[in-house]
Amino acid sequence: MEVLARDGEARAGLLDTPHGRVQTPTFMPVGTKGTVKGLTPADLRGAGAGIILGNTYHLYLRPGADLVREAGDLHAFSGWDGPMLTDSGGFQVFSLAKTRKISERGVRFASVYDGSTHEFTPELTTRVQEDLGADIAMVLDECPPANAARGYHEDSLRRTARWARRCKDAHSREDQALFGIVQGGLHEDLRRESLERTVEIGFPGYAVGGLSVGESREEMLQTLAATALMLPWESPRYFMGIGDPVGILQVISLGVDMFDCVLPTRLARHGAALTPDGRLNLKNSRFRRDFGPLDPECSCETCTGYSRAYLAHLVREDELLGHRLLTLHNVHFTANLCRQARREISSGTYAAWARAWISRYETAR
Amino acid sequence: MEVLARDGEARAGLLDTPHGRVQTPTFMPVGTKGTVKGLTPADLRGAGAGIILGNTYHLYLRPGADLVREAGDLHAFSGWDGPMLTDSGGFQVFSLAKTRKISERGVRFASVYDGSTHEFTPELTTRVQEDLGADIAMVLDECPPANAARGYHEDSLRRTARWARRCKDAHSREDQALFGIVQGGLHEDLRRESLERTVEIGFPGYAVGGLSVGESREEMLQTLAATALMLPWESPRYFMGIGDPVGILQVISLGVDMFDCVLPTRLARHGAALTPDGRLNLKNSRFRRDFGPLDPECSCETCTGYSRAYLAHLVREDELLGHRLLTLHNVHFTANLCRQARREISSGTYAAWARAWISRYETAR
Repeated sequence: MEVLARDGEARAGLLDTPHGRVQTPTFMPVGTKGTVKGLTPADLRGAGAGIILGNTYHLYLRPGADLVREAGDLHAFSGWDGPMLTDSGGFQVFSLAKTRKISERGVRFASVYDGSTHEFTPELTTRVQEDLGADIAMVLDECPPANAARGYHEDSLRRTARWARRCKDAHSREDQALFGIVQGGLHEDLRRESLERTVEIGFPGYAVGGLSVGESREEMLQTLAATALMLPWESPRYFMGIGDPVGILQVISLGVDMFDCVLPTRLARHGAALTPDGRLNLKNSRFRRDFGPLDPECSCETCTGYSRAYLAHLVREDELLGHRLLTLHNVHFTANLCRQARREISSGTYAAWARAWISRYETAR
Repeated sequence: MEVLARDGEARAGLLDTPHGRVQTPTFMPVGTKGTVKGLTPADLRGAGAGIILGNTYHLYLRPGADLVREAGDLHAFSGWDGPMLTDSGGFQVFSLAKTRKISERGVRFASVYDGSTHEFTPELTTRVQEDLGADIAMVLDECPPANAARGYHEDSLRRTARWARRCKDAHSREDQALFGIVQGGLHEDLRRESLERTVEIGFPGYAVGGLSVGESREEMLQTLAATALMLPWESPRYFMGIGDPVGILQVISLGVDMFDCVLPTRLARHGAALTPDGRLNLKNSRFRRDFGPLDPECSCETCTGYSRAYLAHLVREDELLGHRLLTLHNVHFTANLCRQARREISSGTYAAWARAWISRYETAR
């Protein structure tokens, strides 16, 4: 990728993919099963989403990578023709599966859908992601709990590095980038080891995984800070699993270019909207008769077309349109936050702006 | 309304409302709680919906007519600025309430939401509908089961006529039309009596109620045929509760101008799509790998943007986008069917066209 501007450690850049150029830093809305819940590709474009994410675990099980390949790829199947990334499925295996068994060969797990047994190997998840055909694929990694024993993290990161090598060896699509993943828990020296092993294999981009999984925000940022600075300057840096506005601004300040999380879309389905003045729970009775816009500073379809009172009604009645309109807003809001961040980085004013933004977000009610 | 063309008993016309002109015959999608589930006003316009319906029963209970009035009216609250009709709530009281008590004064019932007790009187439902501010409001009627005793139908239709008079007396909005409702079960003489009593009071439009509630289709059509022909020629005729394509074509052939039903939108949420070749259940395994469009003859966003395989995937996974896209299609399909019907009526070819259309719909698989 091309780094256009740097402000402290924060970077603004451009990432070219076969399906278009992505301006970074960028938030990737999660299209778990080949759809960002409730939204069409046109909605996503309108909301300013630059790149979206698909979950290999889910798509492998439902509808199956073979079926997606028959449709052409996930772009053709879902109608989204912009940049796309698929994860390797590893995280879901470790977070969703009730039973799983890790070996050098791969990880066996029971499907969350029907309990059937499957095995993800580096070779398989690479092939599945080639079938899905996203612009960016991820290596299969293990994501142990942050508080696992140090010895476990050591073994795990080394196995993840060996898996990464096998993924790279198995990867053959030239129109798809394969990113490596750095693990190592909260141990800075293990993070360094994982990073060195991964960079040694050599990938066009690197993710920091295994954070934002239960440790404190302070621990997360400290570990990320120690890791991100060692990543190759010219490669995109992807922080896996952050989507709250404050967290986004914090990881951007540490030099992260890309991040994803279900939070903005999941919050929406639970009736919560992101605004510069904090998170609004539309189920709160104070919104019942509030006929103003959801976020007066937002230009999305939801904020320009509907009142808080109407949205509160939809949310209380669990109406599909409520889920859809709040999802649209939260995606637009998050994309716009990244757009603002890029502008501030380019102006060299990122740190002060982010500090003021977070202060307003956290103190408002 | 202005009748532009007649073909047999079928009519094509224009109905002017404060929020625009409606071409008839027209299907009214049901926006139960102030939203046609999953769709925005822009979607509805794009799908060709000419007039939509709101349910007074639901809106009175949630969010409350006073709140809607504070927003301006249901148009302002929901963002739909086209023609709109509200029912009186009577049908929901009789179909949803577990307990209800009818008196000359009105009907007491327990809310389906929280069991709280309410009473709908002709005066109240008229005032509530004035608060909602639709272009067309309906009188409060009782809708007895078709198979109720003849004596019951007799008493009921006379009470409904007395209620209709009270509604008219209570109605004061000059920018809102109040329609009468003809009841009488399956008894042609009682239908005639109800019609005469209602027309005697005098309304700018008339509905035929109490059909499509469990009787056979043949009985329904026979009763409608005997009723519709006696309705004033110059007044719009609204058949309450039909939305399947065959039923629509049948009631149009009997001179009906307007009709509503949750069927097209409810079917969509259950994974079924309406097409000229019959109803398709997207859960059927034959669609899993069908990469063609849902309805090759349809120009809606769903049919031009997505494959049956993708829609089948969304439906199987109960994805919001599946509900939305199928709802959009079914509304578009039904609106388009009415548009075709208008054209055929204008050409004087309605009967043969409708026969051929029904034959294809019913024999395809």
